[in-house]
Amino acid sequence: MKKRLYNIISSPNNPSKASKIFDIIIIVLIVINVLTAILDTFKIPQWLMSVSSYIELISVIIFTVEYLMRVYVSDIERPNMPPVLARLHYMASFMAVIDLLAILPFYIPFIITIDLRVLRILRIFRLLRILKLNRYTSALNSLGEVFRRKKHQLITSVGIVVLLMIISSVLMYNVENEAQPEVFDNALTSLWWTVETLTTVGYGDIVPVTAVGKLLSTVISLLGIGLVAVPTGIISAGFSEIIAEKREHDNDNEKVYCPYCGKKIK
Amino acid sequence: MKKRLYNIISSPNNPSKASKIFDIIIIVLIVINVLTAILDTFKIPQWLMSVSSYIELISVIIFTVEYLMRVYVSDIERPNMPPVLARLHYMASFMAVIDLLAILPFYIPFIITIDLRVLRILRIFRLLRILKLNRYTSALNSLGEVFRRKKHQLITSVGIVVLLMIISSVLMYNVENEAQPEVFDNALTSLWWTVETLTTVGYGDIVPVTAVGKLLSTVISLLGIGLVAVPTGIISAGFSEIIAEKREHDNDNEKVYCPYCGKKIK
Amino acid sequence: MKKRLYNIISSPNNPSKASKIFDIIIIVLIVINVLTAILDTFKIPQWLMSVSSYIELISVIIFTVEYLMRVYVSDIERPNMPPVLARLHYMASFMAVIDLLAILPFYIPFIITIDLRVLRILRIFRLLRILKLNRYTSALNSLGEVFRRKKHQLITSVGIVVLLMIISSVLMYNVENEAQPEVFDNALTSLWWTVETLTTVGYGDIVPVTAVGKLLSTVISLLGIGLVAVPTGIISAGFSEIIAEKREHDNDNEKVYCPYCGKKIK
Amino acid sequence: MKKRLYNIISSPNNPSKASKIFDIIIIVLIVINVLTAILDTFKIPQWLMSVSSYIELISVIIFTVEYLMRVYVSDIERPNMPPVLARLHYMASFMAVIDLLAILPFYIPFIITIDLRVLRILRIFRLLRILKLNRYTSALNSLGEVFRRKKHQLITSVGIVVLLMIISSVLMYNVENEAQPEVFDNALTSLWWTVETLTTVGYGDIVPVTAVGKLLSTVISLLGIGLVAVPTGIISAGFSEIIAEKREHDNDNEKVYCPYCGKKIK
Repeated sequence: MKKRLYNIISSPNNPSKASKIFDIIIIVLIVINVLTAILDTFKIPQWLMSVSSYIELISVIIFTVEYLMRVYVSDIERPNMPPVLARLHYMASFMAVIDLLAILPFYIPFIITIDLRVLRILRIFRLLRILKLNRYTSALNSLGEVFRRKKHQLITSVGIVVLLMIISSVLMYNVENEAQPEVFDNALTSLWWTVETLTTVGYGDIVPVTAVGKLLSTVISLLGIGLVAVPTGIISAGFSEIIAEKREHDNDNEKVYCPYCGKKIK
Repeated sequence: MKKRLYNIISSPNNPSKASKIFDIIIIVLIVINVLTAILDTFKIPQWLMSVSSYIELISVIIFTVEYLMRVYVSDIERPNMPPVLARLHYMASFMAVIDLLAILPFYIPFIITIDLRVLRILRIFRLLRILKLNRYTSALNSLGEVFRRKKHQLITSVGIVVLLMIISSVLMYNVENEAQPEVFDNALTSLWWTVETLTTVGYGDIVPVTAVGKLLSTVISLLGIGLVAVPTGIISAGFSEIIAEKREHDNDNEKVYCPYCGKKIK
Repeated sequence: MKKRLYNIISSPNNPSKASKIFDIIIIVLIVINVLTAILDTFKIPQWLMSVSSYIELISVIIFTVEYLMRVYVSDIERPNMPPVLARLHYMASFMAVIDLLAILPFYIPFIITIDLRVLRILRIFRLLRILKLNRYTSALNSLGEVFRRKKHQLITSVGIVVLLMIISSVLMYNVENEAQPEVFDNALTSLWWTVETLTTVGYGDIVPVTAVGKLLSTVISLLGIGLVAVPTGIISAGFSEIIAEKREHDNDNEKVYCPYCGKKIK
Repeated sequence: MKKRLYNIISSPNNPSKASKIFDIIIIVLIVINVLTAILDTFKIPQWLMSVSSYIELISVIIFTVEYLMRVYVSDIERPNMPPVLARLHYMASFMAVIDLLAILPFYIPFIITIDLRVLRILRIFRLLRILKLNRYTSALNSLGEVFRRKKHQLITSVGIVVLLMIISSVLMYNVENEAQPEVFDNALTSLWWTVETLTTVGYGDIVPVTAVGKLLSTVISLLGIGLVAVPTGIISAGFSEIIAEKREHDNDNEKVYCPYCGKKIK
């Protein structure tokens, strides 16, 4: 019974018909939820709003039942552990946390009065679990592999960027505040300006007007070019590295024999 | 007769004089059409407008005849198929669809009253077929090869971007709507803001004003950097891969001797 | 006499003292000229304007004499040619054209009344010739080498971008003109918008307001990401290629002998 | 005594407990200083301002004592030099200059009346010295290694960008000044516009309106793409190079046997 439930829910490599139907229901439900979340941002008539609320209610019930079932059967995957520990292990996994985050916002207002229902948009992430399209999963893995390998280098460059942002914010406030006290009114505002400039978004809601401010802005914009160049270089080298290793590995596995004397050369 | 028509139209590797003249006429006609489409956007006197209409009429007639001829002779390329099937095969090819799209908008208003004549600008794509400049075709092919190889990785990163865009739109609407109900008026408007920000275009027509909105915007802008870095890394690795394979292939052509018996192996 | 003049002007590998002094004079003169061109854009008193005019007059005289001398001695470099042909060859070289462009704008107003004096800012390019700092020349060469190798691929991607720009301009005009007839008033204005968007500059002086326009703009901005990614990938692969070839070449030149039996292995 | 002080301050590879406590105190002090510098940009009540001043005073005293101690013990690192020379050597090192810059702004107003206290934000750089997280230091080193190797190429591309900026500024002033005398009022303003455009920030505070200006702007924006592509390509190739060398080095460590006599060569 529990084994069968597990097979339906966890959709293994060769899924049964029941498993496929279950997946499709969940996918349709997620898509409906995302569309509802988008629809709720428009001015909609009262009756549509009630429909939206009912959909939300039903969805949360289904997702909650699904979540509990997943936790319940999760001990099958770790047969060597005591069931409670196995389930706690599962609950701490990335995908289970996403699943929980997708239903929790509904229950929070019953406890404290903060409305976090907007977080249900995170349900869209659940698609990643169910959409196990083989080719794309492999692509996603090699993307993840690059990030994992270059983690330290990427974090280091982000760290340097954060240091630069703080310095730039405080300097820029001190340079521009006198000329535009309303625009550069504190370090947070000029941090916002720094973000806009370093990422080259440049909305134009905050623009330096003093000569020193423009000079500083020039330096920051040029560093912004580096902000793109460095991670791109790291990621690009990461992809090349993986490809090169694969090719080397393929070459190493080829054994070469001399066709005349039969001895192994490689 | 049909064979000769095929030789003229399809401009093979060593084209005849008639084939070259045919190509030049079509190229000139396309360029005139593009210039007319551009000219039509200016405030032009009545007589020039009529000239433009006549050019359109004549062009469509020529392009239609050309299209029908191409379809007619296309069975030569697939001698093993029955002619009708061969022609349907041709009609489904990328270039034939472009050719059809370039004339169809003219005929649609006769059937339904939607004016799609603006689509005739797509005729410019037809240049790609005729301009078979050898060196550039090879460059175009290696560009296409990179995209083909890295298709799954590129689609995966676009997919992740689309998920992020939907999440960002809904969150941003909920964060900013109260402060700027006129600016962030629904999820589509905030999707537009998300696009502007992720691609670092940043027109500045929609700008977050709340602290939470600016924080979210910071995260999205920094992800925008990744939006550039990841595909650049993928494409860059793709180009390097092609070059490395070519070099390896060149190395394989080098002569190798067996170190034991001294005979030539490769 | 002519040989000595040549040695002074063309600053060979081991320059004489006279040659060094000559170079310094020219460099100082170019820097003064650039500073004058910048100064002329400010509101300056009458007397400073006259000084600027005198500097211009003197500079043009010196640069003209220098140019004539360079042409005169240029036949030394091509001893196998008749002198006139050798000089014409020299005059057609990239650097000689820059030199001519740097003085010509001064003489044009005597013939026709177009004021092209602003072009004298091009004199700054002349620094590239004289500043033969060894290390940087080598870096400049490897930069040039990458562009030369990848010329066809880079031109192809620029060509595709130009096609996209024309299509986008005409489509965008037709989509937005009705809603904003003053803003998108013809295809050139919407070409300007396309440039802003594809390059992700996004000044915000022209922004689409219709839903279709925003959708089209989304597609164009995302293609703008590709506009960065593709040439970056090409250039990056080019640099990697040069480095890999250099390393391979170094490896190939190493001969390896067995230290025990003395036979050559590689 | 001095040896012990050195061990506490310079936090060697296996730091003592005293050394760790010293580091934590300094880190906490730096973080407090940075927070104070940010806080000072907000409108804060009088009493908080005094607190901030006291923190500044105490910090400067501690940092000054720390700096003097570091200089005092620095001769231990260079036992072969006379102590005074060793200390001067230390004072000229990058990290010691940062340390000095972090306290100097406090003392300058006693001598001349320029308020440079804003420079105390540079204290944040001091974190780089103390935060010796092993993994990230290695990532930082490989980042630095790439910049060191590609120094000449990066400087060359920056040099070309600077030349282009000057040319663009003067040309743009001359093209746009007549149409918008208030906006493009001198070469510095149009230099500011050039920076905005080349780096694709595009605030939109200065926008060309003439046809020639827009054409020039198109060219500059497209060069801006190159401004990203070239350094990214250089840095990316640099990372790939380092990885390739490492792999080659690993391969060199593999054992190789002479195919003639069978003895191990490597």
